[in-house]
Amino acid sequence: MIVILKHDHNPGQLESLISWLQEKGITIHTSIGEANTVLGLVGDTSKLDIDLIAALDIVEDVKRVQEPYKNANRKFHPEDTVVKVGNTQIGGGNLTIMAGPCSVESEEQVVAIAKAVKASGATMLRGGAFKPRTSPYAFQGLGEKGLEYLKAARAETGLPIVTELMDPGHLPLFKDVDVIQIGARNMQNFDLLKAVGHQDKPVMIKRGMSATYEEWLMSAEYVMAGGNENVILCERGIRTFESYTRNTLDLAAIPVLHKLTHLPIIVDPSHATGKYWLVEPLAMGAVATGADGLQIEVHNDPAHALCDGPQSLKPEAFDPLAKKLLALHAHLNGAEG
Amino acid sequence: MIVILKHDHNPGQLESLISWLQEKGITIHTSIGEANTVLGLVGDTSKLDIDLIAALDIVEDVKRVQEPYKNANRKFHPEDTVVKVGNTQIGGGNLTIMAGPCSVESEEQVVAIAKAVKASGATMLRGGAFKPRTSPYAFQGLGEKGLEYLKAARAETGLPIVTELMDPGHLPLFKDVDVIQIGARNMQNFDLLKAVGHQDKPVMIKRGMSATYEEWLMSAEYVMAGGNENVILCERGIRTFESYTRNTLDLAAIPVLHKLTHLPIIVDPSHATGKYWLVEPLAMGAVATGADGLQIEVHNDPAHALCDGPQSLKPEAFDPLAKKLLALHAHLNGAEG
Amino acid sequence: MIVILKHDHNPGQLESLISWLQEKGITIHTSIGEANTVLGLVGDTSKLDIDLIAALDIVEDVKRVQEPYKNANRKFHPEDTVVKVGNTQIGGGNLTIMAGPCSVESEEQVVAIAKAVKASGATMLRGGAFKPRTSPYAFQGLGEKGLEYLKAARAETGLPIVTELMDPGHLPLFKDVDVIQIGARNMQNFDLLKAVGHQDKPVMIKRGMSATYEEWLMSAEYVMAGGNENVILCERGIRTFESYTRNTLDLAAIPVLHKLTHLPIIVDPSHATGKYWLVEPLAMGAVATGADGLQIEVHNDPAHALCDGPQSLKPEAFDPLAKKLLALHAHLNGAEG
Amino acid sequence: MIVILKHDHNPGQLESLISWLQEKGITIHTSIGEANTVLGLVGDTSKLDIDLIAALDIVEDVKRVQEPYKNANRKFHPEDTVVKVGNTQIGGGNLTIMAGPCSVESEEQVVAIAKAVKASGATMLRGGAFKPRTSPYAFQGLGEKGLEYLKAARAETGLPIVTELMDPGHLPLFKDVDVIQIGARNMQNFDLLKAVGHQDKPVMIKRGMSATYEEWLMSAEYVMAGGNENVILCERGIRTFESYTRNTLDLAAIPVLHKLTHLPIIVDPSHATGKYWLVEPLAMGAVATGADGLQIEVHNDPAHALCDGPQSLKPEAFDPLAKKLLALHAHLNGAEG
Repeated sequence: MIVILKHDHNPGQLESLISWLQEKGITIHTSIGEANTVLGLVGDTSKLDIDLIAALDIVEDVKRVQEPYKNANRKFHPEDTVVKVGNTQIGGGNLTIMAGPCSVESEEQVVAIAKAVKASGATMLRGGAFKPRTSPYAFQGLGEKGLEYLKAARAETGLPIVTELMDPGHLPLFKDVDVIQIGARNMQNFDLLKAVGHQDKPVMIKRGMSATYEEWLMSAEYVMAGGNENVILCERGIRTFESYTRNTLDLAAIPVLHKLTHLPIIVDPSHATGKYWLVEPLAMGAVATGADGLQIEVHNDPAHALCDGPQSLKPEAFDPLAKKLLALHAHLNGAEG
Repeated sequence: MIVILKHDHNPGQLESLISWLQEKGITIHTSIGEANTVLGLVGDTSKLDIDLIAALDIVEDVKRVQEPYKNANRKFHPEDTVVKVGNTQIGGGNLTIMAGPCSVESEEQVVAIAKAVKASGATMLRGGAFKPRTSPYAFQGLGEKGLEYLKAARAETGLPIVTELMDPGHLPLFKDVDVIQIGARNMQNFDLLKAVGHQDKPVMIKRGMSATYEEWLMSAEYVMAGGNENVILCERGIRTFESYTRNTLDLAAIPVLHKLTHLPIIVDPSHATGKYWLVEPLAMGAVATGADGLQIEVHNDPAHALCDGPQSLKPEAFDPLAKKLLALHAHLNGAEG
Repeated sequence: MIVILKHDHNPGQLESLISWLQEKGITIHTSIGEANTVLGLVGDTSKLDIDLIAALDIVEDVKRVQEPYKNANRKFHPEDTVVKVGNTQIGGGNLTIMAGPCSVESEEQVVAIAKAVKASGATMLRGGAFKPRTSPYAFQGLGEKGLEYLKAARAETGLPIVTELMDPGHLPLFKDVDVIQIGARNMQNFDLLKAVGHQDKPVMIKRGMSATYEEWLMSAEYVMAGGNENVILCERGIRTFESYTRNTLDLAAIPVLHKLTHLPIIVDPSHATGKYWLVEPLAMGAVATGADGLQIEVHNDPAHALCDGPQSLKPEAFDPLAKKLLALHAHLNGAEG
Repeated sequence: MIVILKHDHNPGQLESLISWLQEKGITIHTSIGEANTVLGLVGDTSKLDIDLIAALDIVEDVKRVQEPYKNANRKFHPEDTVVKVGNTQIGGGNLTIMAGPCSVESEEQVVAIAKAVKASGATMLRGGAFKPRTSPYAFQGLGEKGLEYLKAARAETGLPIVTELMDPGHLPLFKDVDVIQIGARNMQNFDLLKAVGHQDKPVMIKRGMSATYEEWLMSAEYVMAGGNENVILCERGIRTFESYTRNTLDLAAIPVLHKLTHLPIIVDPSHATGKYWLVEPLAMGAVATGADGLQIEVHNDPAHALCDGPQSLKPEAFDPLAKKLLALHAHLNGAEG
């Protein structure tokens, strides 16, 4: 950590800062320039509160040299984390395809979709039982019953299931789920992160709508600090001024996170864009950029087409897409091998 | 609601859309233009899912004419909501000043600050017992003990207390708090919003870092839909590309929300800017723009000045600020009267 | 265009609005709902000023149904525009690779790079002679001399050249350039757009740092309205709160623009990310998402490596990247064929 | 400037970096920590290219300690700049009120508005003759004739005029204007900035829609580097995800810029919000936050009310607002005196 002192800092305050830091086991290198004095702090600075130091009267600025996350940091864990889920693996060169409906609506629906997406090449089933909705008047999901339908679909197809948890109090209901999803709106629901950190199911954390890479990794760190190292990250777009798409999918997140962390990165083009016809090109782009997998909304619905979300593909459209994605992944692995 | 159909829409699908809408009690006005056919939907459209309609094959775009919130909407509730807290009132022309430390650290600290801010003119005491921290390694607050210290400060000064709730499971601990604060990161923690909607203490909802006015009002609507109409909104800055300040304080929120809703609006210049020397000018700006009150961080700390947050004022600096704010409020009321 | 009237609108003002619109040849369909009266405007609304109508006392909101751009609009020009430059073509299924240094520094430098990138598969040479720099103290480019060096490199290699114009007054110097680039900071320099619209060289318009798709297309429309239909669009990232990368590359722009317009779309991963190691994954992602080409910074510099920009690849790194991009493009065309 | 080296940096490359820096007159302090080696660069680092150093193989990160602007920097010029315009002064405790129409439409219009706003207390007349419009089909302003009408209004009222220049080629037409305005879209039109830096009329630079404070000050620096020190800054909102208002007015810019620079700061609430009813509260907020002045759109228009912009006040509404602003300014000066 680098501490830049004000030009006219009080020497007495500087001494008390230095002794406070030394008490914490930090070694200090002082560099006196014409314009500024700079302190270089050496030692375990990950527990120093940067805001607190920045607040001191004598300090002009503080800059962190090391990342504030440790368990999630590739520097301290160079090997890729590979998360095992049922008989599939996320990360480590595999292409995971999670597909399924945004909301679970009925057992028939979710079983039919699960069968279809499995036949097309999906490796996991996604589906929402507890749904975060911006309106209190909108359908909030089937809840516990929805979880049962997902398990029925898993029993029929063998596909592991991933579904969202919104309240730490609901954790007991999720003991039979394969991957617990933390939604974008809850990325910094720290009590929820602590709760899933204290159990051992894999956790997939969606990026918050205005979260930086570092904040997102700190949310992973919350889970890992609790002892659960099976963390997956999911890029789902960030909020910008562009309103044509629901969010702006940030594919640079894939190579950046692969550098900063050893955790696998999944991309959700359905929610990011909010338009079904953008799912294919961005799913292809995500694979070519190096994503470890995709989460794609697929919906059937012969009876009432009205319930289909704007970002959902029909199984008939998902099938050729899945095949293209797998062919692209094979091409890239061959080309790079 | 306005539904714009695609140029080449299938007439059969249009018929099925129209009958589906009519079943829901909606009347439809059709306007056939050269380029587009437009449906005007009349009736209670607040429960129609706009995304669902937008997803239909025959639909080019859907635009809402009416706001999706009802309880929070000034159109249906023209009078200002005035929230009574202890012997103070929030809204209705009063200037509420909530002051206190970011974190409660000890009983002596919070009592001393409470006395100081009361003497300067503060009408409520703020202080965090459960702290949302981006790092799992940072101080997470004193928890239940912190709540006790706040109550001790209230007992000494009579100032009502406002403090943050992060987990629905902690609600029983808050039964003796005056105002429950929902933090920016939990603005769309819908289970938390439902929980505080089902009890009757006033709730202050901070704006999420990338929340639109409408989403923020929908969070208020969640609480009000549960039966609790004592909702206060708190603007605390939104995230932009400007990184000199921690966030960008959006003072336009004050007159916009006063038009859209009847709920009172508080402004927090301390967290918005992250710099103590910006608190005064922006607090003055907020009052002149019409805020119903302010939330200001004040910290004493003779012993370890290092624990002072970068956005905190000392009581000695808060005192003249509070007087200037009250004088400005008096000037504005006189000038407008 | 849809005009939503205020609930309590003055009938006299409504009459005068209607006759004003009728004078402009607009037909009006009125739909009277319980809550709102809605006017549907039919006819050539592209010249109506939406802000002007929204400003009227009786108007609650105005929503455009049709896009405000015509020449750039795919609806009125369904076929892809293919821009011919020298013996290469941009758009129409080709993969254009523009490569070269950010700044032209010397004739030797640019000739050497041009030869190298041509050998690797590049189809155009990029290089800046007039450089937009945020600091007046930074190197502003070699100017006219830089243009000469680019032409020398073209003479040696046959690669057409693309270079940035910043001032309408410099246009005479550009009469021998192949493609005129309009930089992101000048995307809404309307006098510059008019100037390049009144000459016939192809123009490549980079997206402004905070430009929406519609504004970007309106900038293309400025050029096309002057009579020049050879317009190319270049996505180079938008500004967000994420500061790890210089900008956030928005690959959704590719399929969205391919839907909205017939103009070709180039992607610049070098400037978007500001980091050389992100160029390869995002270039691959751009091709897989359907980009018509790429603009990539390549720099040699045996003598003073210090002048190398952080986003530049060395020719040795560009060579395998170009081959991977071409192989990916071939795979996608085969897979889709 | 602080240069953080990579853990495994090549010592030979470090030596060549150090000698290169020493050649430029920079002294280097080296601080070797456990995890990183940090170089402290002392001397005139304002001409070092931070991106260039960051690009070096051995460098992990570079952080600037000193601001890259000098002429605009309050550190080197502690006294407020007061810009004299006609018989009025901008900065130095005065409250400048620039008022007038967005577009000059006729001599009668602009003279009538000038008289009205002068009577209400305005100190300058604003009005656009050359108009930046996102659509090539929209009214582009009266051009040279518009400038004549503004001068006629000045002759009638004595109010100095401020109007926008868009093209360096038009500068000769502006030789009789009082203040040249650079619009938000041209904030980084560097050739335009250079052109106005080489003449001596005061220049008001509007903040770009996604410009940081530092970039904005660097644009001021461009003008000042040319020799023109009469620079005024104008905050007019930045682009965010919130679309209810046209832009988000950033009033924190006022105290931040007052700290960073000695130049005066004007606020434009009309363009920032795009809604006439938001002008008053935000103008009041700007004055209370410490703005040196305001730019407010005022429009008369008995004949065709349709041409009134959505953000314009009528003279009847401007009059009480101007009085309230002046009363607030007087109150604040009294209160602070």
